[in-house]
Amino acid sequence: MQRHSELEPLGQVIRTYRQAAGYTQEEFAYESHLDRGFVGAVERAERNVGFRKIRQLLVGLGIDWRDFGAALQEIDRLPRRGADRLYRSHQDPED
Amino acid sequence: MQRHSELEPLGQVIRTYRQAAGYTQEEFAYESHLDRGFVGAVERAERNVGFRKIRQLLVGLGIDWRDFGAALQEIDRLPRRGADRLYRSHQDPED
Repeated sequence: MQRHSELEPLGQVIRTYRQAAGYTQEEFAYESHLDRGFVGAVERAERNVGFRKIRQLLVGLGIDWRDFGAALQEIDRLPRRGADRLYRSHQDPED
Repeated sequence: MQRHSELEPLGQVIRTYRQAAGYTQEEFAYESHLDRGFVGAVERAERNVGFRKIRQLLVGLGIDWRDFGAALQEIDRLPRRGADRLYRSHQDPED
């Protein structure tokens, strides 16, 4: 299957956290009630994952939305257009 | 169309940032090269949005992955299982 460069950061983040947790893909899939093939495809950037499945992956990894956002931004540096932070938010050391 | 409660936080975050930026749905859709109906459906939690479209929404809103993660976590409080932060990460005031 084809890899999609825009999906690489997602795959990297999931793989990194899964490995840090000491899970094989198979163990992680089982714990997270996901298909093993699905987990592999996500990590290989072959699947465009929907919001609900992303959420399920994070719950399985035991990380929250902030962890996920911070990790993604390290790899996939989206620009900010001076957006006000509208929520009680992270303290960004670069601010 | 049916609303999905798991999608509500996503819809809220997109709507809040869009309104804060002073965009109507139509203006925002135009600027972001997205369909107006799609934007409305996302905000109404009727659409499970894929990773690539989420990315496109954030670029259109001028917010980065950290903003997105922090905003989502405020609304959709995912548990953390003592996950080590594996990336140079946000400073969480609750830590």
